[in-house]
Amino acid sequence: MNKTRVLTGVTTTGIPHLGNYVGAIRPAIRAAAQENVESYLFLANYHGIIKCHQPEMIEESTKAVAATWLACGLDTERTVFYRQSDIPEILELNWILTCITTKGLMNRAHAYKAAVDKNITENQDADFDIEMGLYSYPILMTADIIMFNAHHVPVGRDQIQHVEMARDIAQRFNHRFGKDIFRLPEVVIDENVELLVGLDGRKMSKSYGNTIELFLTPKQRQKAVNKILTNLKEPGEPKFKDESPLFEIYQAFATPAEYAEFESNLKNGMAWGEAKKVLAAKIGEELEPLTDKYNELIAHPTQIEEILQAGAAKARVEARERLAQVKDAIGIKSLA
Amino acid sequence: MNKTRVLTGVTTTGIPHLGNYVGAIRPAIRAAAQENVESYLFLANYHGIIKCHQPEMIEESTKAVAATWLACGLDTERTVFYRQSDIPEILELNWILTCITTKGLMNRAHAYKAAVDKNITENQDADFDIEMGLYSYPILMTADIIMFNAHHVPVGRDQIQHVEMARDIAQRFNHRFGKDIFRLPEVVIDENVELLVGLDGRKMSKSYGNTIELFLTPKQRQKAVNKILTNLKEPGEPKFKDESPLFEIYQAFATPAEYAEFESNLKNGMAWGEAKKVLAAKIGEELEPLTDKYNELIAHPTQIEEILQAGAAKARVEARERLAQVKDAIGIKSLA
Repeated sequence: MNKTRVLTGVTTTGIPHLGNYVGAIRPAIRAAAQENVESYLFLANYHGIIKCHQPEMIEESTKAVAATWLACGLDTERTVFYRQSDIPEILELNWILTCITTKGLMNRAHAYKAAVDKNITENQDADFDIEMGLYSYPILMTADIIMFNAHHVPVGRDQIQHVEMARDIAQRFNHRFGKDIFRLPEVVIDENVELLVGLDGRKMSKSYGNTIELFLTPKQRQKAVNKILTNLKEPGEPKFKDESPLFEIYQAFATPAEYAEFESNLKNGMAWGEAKKVLAAKIGEELEPLTDKYNELIAHPTQIEEILQAGAAKARVEARERLAQVKDAIGIKSLA
Repeated sequence: MNKTRVLTGVTTTGIPHLGNYVGAIRPAIRAAAQENVESYLFLANYHGIIKCHQPEMIEESTKAVAATWLACGLDTERTVFYRQSDIPEILELNWILTCITTKGLMNRAHAYKAAVDKNITENQDADFDIEMGLYSYPILMTADIIMFNAHHVPVGRDQIQHVEMARDIAQRFNHRFGKDIFRLPEVVIDENVELLVGLDGRKMSKSYGNTIELFLTPKQRQKAVNKILTNLKEPGEPKFKDESPLFEIYQAFATPAEYAEFESNLKNGMAWGEAKKVLAAKIGEELEPLTDKYNELIAHPTQIEEILQAGAAKARVEARERLAQVKDAIGIKSLA
């Protein structure tokens, strides 16, 4: 039976936090472990540079993201794990696809349109301060996806359009050159994606400043958990789910039975302070072993680099082959 | 003394004709022979695919253009002669520069604006049928130029803007990342560029269908020359420069003394037919030895390929080094 090839990219512009772990990393690693799945996961550093112009952040994030996925149990025997910039063939394909993508398609991209709307609202020129990376990155995403003939690209709702564009561009190439080189990728939306809430009850996000770091010492973790919003109820008073994000965060790390007990204890008057101790311990149960692995990797970046190089070597075999087919189809070939 | 580095690209979408030879190839080869010049010449096949979607034409043109320059005496010891697609580092740099180029800059590019104007005149959507290759190729041209830190880029007047854009983008990179990696290229306009007229007296151009092929047998060449426009004057009647493109074409291949004699003979009544024989012989004098070389190369494409590979090897040493500096500056680097 043919395996389903699933491709995911992670932009390297930040340090993964607990929300990323629950919402993206943990489910992706679980999905990659399925027998019928062939998984591609890459560090999208050439997307990172679109918005992030701090070289130190790109570098630090690349290391942290790689170490995080590895520490969280990514099986590099089963997943092709590579850094985008180690596959220069993708950038060549990006230009080739640029030559067959209509400008009208890019004009309709949400991220670009949002930037234009913002400019117009602020009485600026429509394209004020917009760089070409923001405008044309759906083409690079297409190259990322169709280079490896991915079947499925799991994305959030805001990214559906990009996968549709990748289908459009792939189809246009196949049609124009009369070849069946590229598979048309399908979007997969996980409706049950767990979005973790942050300290203040809104979605956990760097931009809200309400995150909990992923890899902490037990003491640091307790300190972070203690910042979770609660109310002024005294010990002994009944406490309910709508009164603090504590409940949802606990739920993300507990079995249903454990969660039911936690909820019941709070209803029966457990103090917020006590609940925070229970929660920090629960998170620690899952994350402490991963934290040790993470710290070990961060202390030995050469190990991460070796893993990424091995992944790139696997990916490049295929990238070279597909790019050769593509170049042959468009007339870019050796004369000999 | 430091040499002046001069870079020229030739798009691979056609077969060079006599007008290209007189207007571009011959002067460039003469210029490259100067002691203080370091010359870079490349086959711009990744520009070719912007407008030409016929793989056979891209392939045939690449071979013909390479063989033409070599047959015409390009000294590959003194000129780094390569095919753009053999330097994948250029496509990587292209994306990096895409991320620092403002969209407003691309909106002002002449070729794009002309396409928009045409659409508007024809009551079409402004971006109708425009592909992203046409829109963003000034960025690829920038990568071509600044990858090799060219001092001078000799161009026609319609290309001045592209070199100015390359300066803009190079400067923006240097400024944003606080590095002095890229040299700002200077445009060089050859005011004395010889534009050869075609069979009908207009500029010789494929689009006018008034060209003379470069490499012909003497019989074919006579046949082509016989098509040059003349009038109905009989032998014995005086004939003048404004009566036929014959004069200008002869001038492009003759010494001033030879040309004066030719002009005088026609004034004294030489028949058009006779003048055409003299002209075909004159062109043949210069082109017959080159035609032999050309045919030899076309019959042995492996020889051309070897020369291009040797050129690419030279160019890549430098391209790799500069790209490494660039990637380091933006944070795309090894973790080890």
